[in-house]
Amino acid sequence: MRLSAYFLPTMKETPSEAQIMSHRLMLRAGMIRQSSAGIYSWLPLGLKVLERIKTIVREEQNRAGAQELLMPTIQSADLWQESGRYDDYGKEMLRITDRHDRNMLFGPTNEELITDIFRQAVRSYKNLPLNLYHIQWKFRDEIRPRFGVMRGREFLMKDAYSFDKDENAARISYNKMFAAYLRTFRRMGLKAIPMRADTGPIGGNLSHEFIILAETGESEVFCHQDYLEKDVAMDPIEDPEALQAYVDAWTCLYAATEDMHDASQYDASVPKESQINARGIEVGHVFYFGTKYSEAMNAKVSLKEGGEAAVHMGSYGIGVSRLVGAVIEACHDDNGIIWPESVAPFDFGLIKLKAGDANLDTACDDLYCKLTSLGWDVLYDDRDDRPGAKFATMDLIGLPWQIILGPKGLAAGKIELKRRVTGEREEISIEDLLNRFGEKQGGA
Amino acid sequence: MRLSAYFLPTMKETPSEAQIMSHRLMLRAGMIRQSSAGIYSWLPLGLKVLERIKTIVREEQNRAGAQELLMPTIQSADLWQESGRYDDYGKEMLRITDRHDRNMLFGPTNEELITDIFRQAVRSYKNLPLNLYHIQWKFRDEIRPRFGVMRGREFLMKDAYSFDKDENAARISYNKMFAAYLRTFRRMGLKAIPMRADTGPIGGNLSHEFIILAETGESEVFCHQDYLEKDVAMDPIEDPEALQAYVDAWTCLYAATEDMHDASQYDASVPKESQINARGIEVGHVFYFGTKYSEAMNAKVSLKEGGEAAVHMGSYGIGVSRLVGAVIEACHDDNGIIWPESVAPFDFGLIKLKAGDANLDTACDDLYCKLTSLGWDVLYDDRDDRPGAKFATMDLIGLPWQIILGPKGLAAGKIELKRRVTGEREEISIEDLLNRFGEKQGGA
Repeated sequence: MRLSAYFLPTMKETPSEAQIMSHRLMLRAGMIRQSSAGIYSWLPLGLKVLERIKTIVREEQNRAGAQELLMPTIQSADLWQESGRYDDYGKEMLRITDRHDRNMLFGPTNEELITDIFRQAVRSYKNLPLNLYHIQWKFRDEIRPRFGVMRGREFLMKDAYSFDKDENAARISYNKMFAAYLRTFRRMGLKAIPMRADTGPIGGNLSHEFIILAETGESEVFCHQDYLEKDVAMDPIEDPEALQAYVDAWTCLYAATEDMHDASQYDASVPKESQINARGIEVGHVFYFGTKYSEAMNAKVSLKEGGEAAVHMGSYGIGVSRLVGAVIEACHDDNGIIWPESVAPFDFGLIKLKAGDANLDTACDDLYCKLTSLGWDVLYDDRDDRPGAKFATMDLIGLPWQIILGPKGLAAGKIELKRRVTGEREEISIEDLLNRFGEKQGGA
Repeated sequence: MRLSAYFLPTMKETPSEAQIMSHRLMLRAGMIRQSSAGIYSWLPLGLKVLERIKTIVREEQNRAGAQELLMPTIQSADLWQESGRYDDYGKEMLRITDRHDRNMLFGPTNEELITDIFRQAVRSYKNLPLNLYHIQWKFRDEIRPRFGVMRGREFLMKDAYSFDKDENAARISYNKMFAAYLRTFRRMGLKAIPMRADTGPIGGNLSHEFIILAETGESEVFCHQDYLEKDVAMDPIEDPEALQAYVDAWTCLYAATEDMHDASQYDASVPKESQINARGIEVGHVFYFGTKYSEAMNAKVSLKEGGEAAVHMGSYGIGVSRLVGAVIEACHDDNGIIWPESVAPFDFGLIKLKAGDANLDTACDDLYCKLTSLGWDVLYDDRDDRPGAKFATMDLIGLPWQIILGPKGLAAGKIELKRRVTGEREEISIEDLLNRFGEKQGGA
C-alpha cells in the first residue's frame, strides 16, 4: 500500500479524552475514531490488526475442534424469558422494540440462542461432543464506557459453546478451550494468566479468567510470579489425561482476581518474594455451567444407556476488539506502538527519504514490488514530506521493520533496516535484504 | 471436514414456511436457521458460502482501489438529524433508546457516518479521490420480512462511499465501481444486468441497480436480451475514457426496473423478439448523489485553484447475504443446490459407501488426507448410513464434485467421480484423480 493513497489520518496531538496509552495511540495512529460514546469505527489500519487477531483466534478455535457459525446481533426477548435471564441482565442489555412492538435486544452474549439452535438440531449423544463458536459484535450498554476499545459498548467477541453428555466429557471440552486460549494469547505475544474467577450472570461453578498484567488494567489481581515464565503447549494435546495434567499445572499455583482473592491462602501458599500484586486486563473468560440453560430450555439428548438427559454446557469468550488495546498496552514505548509480528498491520514500512529523485523513485518502487510479490505486506511512504515526519509516523504505527532508502544510501547500494522493537539499525544491500527475508511463510 | 463430526442439520421435509426455492434449500441443506422474523443464524455450511462471497466482493473492491474499514452497527441519531434523513426513513429504521435516553439506531446504511469520518480527517483535494467501504450487518425493519435471506431484517451489506473534488472525477469513481460490480457478480457465476433505477431515500440523479433474472425476483424488469451474452472485462480498466466507453456499452441498451420503465421507449428501441420481460433480484445498487450529504454536513475540501468546495459523493451497495440466496435461485435443480466452484462451501464431497470395512476406511482416509494436503476443501461423508441417503445429502448441499468410493471400486482400483452440475460420472483411478486436480490454486 502506498501511503500517499492510504486513509491513515494520524494525529500529532494527544487527544485529551483518552486516559490510557492504548486509547491514545489508537487514536493518534489513525486506527479508530469514536462515533458515539463507547462506539468506534475501525479505520483501515485498525481493521487490519483486528482481522489478524480474529484470524489467530479462529485458527486456534478450529484446531481445538470448535466449528464456526454466525448468530445475528439482534435477538428476540422470548428466549431470554425462557432461560430466566431477561430481567437479570439489567440496564446493560440494550433493549429494543421493533415496529410490531415485539421485545428484541442486541445480544450481549449467546447462551440462549445457541441452546435454541442446538435443541432444534441435536437429539442424540452420538452427535456429541459439539463445540460451536462465532465471532460477532456484541453490545453492553455500559453506564460509563471508557478506555477506548477496552471498555466500549459495541465490541467484537468470540464466544464458543460446548455441549457434552455428562460432566466428565464437559470437563474435557473445557480443558481443550483452556489450552486453546493459552495458545491464542501466546501467539499474539501476550502472557495471559488463568485465574479463578467469579461466574457472574453466566452462572456455573467452574470458571477462569485469562488476565494480561498491565498497569492500566481495571481489576486488581494476585498471582505467583512463576506464571510469567510458564511454558505454553503450542499444539493441541489429544490425550484427555495429559490435557488434564496440563490444565492442573496451569492452575495449581495461586492466581486470583479481586473477587475471588483470599489473602490468608495467598500468603500461606506463595512466598512473599514470589507474590505479584498487580493490575490486569481480562482478555478471555471460560465457564462450565452444567445444565443451567439446557434444563431451563429443555435441550436434551438420548443416552447410550437409554433415557435422556439435559446436555452439559460451557461457554468460552475472547474479547477480540479489546485484545487490540491489550496488545498495545503490553507493547509500546514513548514513540508509539510496537506490534508483535503476528498481529502487525503490515510487515514492513518502506520510507523513501526524498521526493522528486527519479533514481530513488525507481529503486523504491522496485523494492516495494519485489517485497510485495514475495508475499510481504508493505506500507510504502512515498509522500512528499520531511524525513523526520516520516520516521515519527512509522514509529507511531509500530510496524516490525522499517526500510529506509535515500539518495546517499542508493549511491552506496545500501538501505537502512531498522527493527522497531529494539531500535537496532543496520545497513545492508537490497539483495541481502531480499535473501534474508525471502518468501513470506503463511499462517500459524 | 468429517461429516460425522460436522454440524450439518439437514432436513428431509420441505419446511412449510419457505415460499421460494433458495429459502427452502438453505433450510434443508442446514445452512441457516431462523431465530426470529427475518433474522437468521448462519450455520457452518451457510457461513462458509457467505465468507466466500465476502472474499470475492472484498477482492474486487480492493482491486478497484477502495479501502476497507469497519463502521459500527449502532449509530447516534444526531448525524441523521444533521443530514435531515432521521425522519425520512420511517418505520424501517430500527430506533433505539440507550440507558441515558439518547436516541440511537441500528444503521440501515452509512452515508452520514462515513461523511462524518471523512470531514474529520480530510481537508484537501490532494487526498482525493478516496473510496472507503465496509462489510457490515445492517438492519431494516421490514414490515413483512420474507424469502429467507433475500428480504431479511438483519442482513450483510457491502457499502462503499466515494469522495471526489468535482462531478467529472466522481463519475470516474462511479464507473470504477460499476465495472467492479460486473466483475464481482460474474465471478460468482451470475449474469447481472445494470438497470437505470430510482434513487429512493439515498438521493441523487444517477443510479443503477444490478439485477439477476429469476422467476422469484421481487421486481418486474424489462431489458434487451443481448445483455445476457455481453462480455465482462475481468480486469480493472485504468484509462478513464476507455472505462467510460465500457460503461456506455453496458448501459446503452434498454434495461429498466418497473419504477423507471417507459413502455413506448422500450418498444421503439428494442425489437419485440429481443425484449425480455422478466422478474429480477437486485444484488447491487450504485448511486451518484453529488453534494447532498457533504453540503448538509459541511464536508469540504480546499481546491487547487483556491477556495473550498463540498465533496462530490457516491455510494455503492452489494447485498452480500442476499447473494447467497440469489446464487441458489440461479443454480439449483430438483435434487438441490449446484454451487459454482467460486463460492462452493467445499470443493469435493467424498462418499465412503460402506462403514466398517477396514480397507475401505484406510483408502478413504488416505484420499481425504491427500486432497486436503493439496489445498482442497473436502467434506468427507464417513458416517454409517445408507448409500442412498449419502447421495441425497451430497446432491442437496451441491458441492461441485463428488468422489464415491466403495469396496467394489476399491478392488478394481477405481473411484467414481461425479460432477454435480451435469450429473456426468466417470470411473478413474485415485492416482489419475490426484494428477488431474493437482494442487489447488488460490484466489482470484
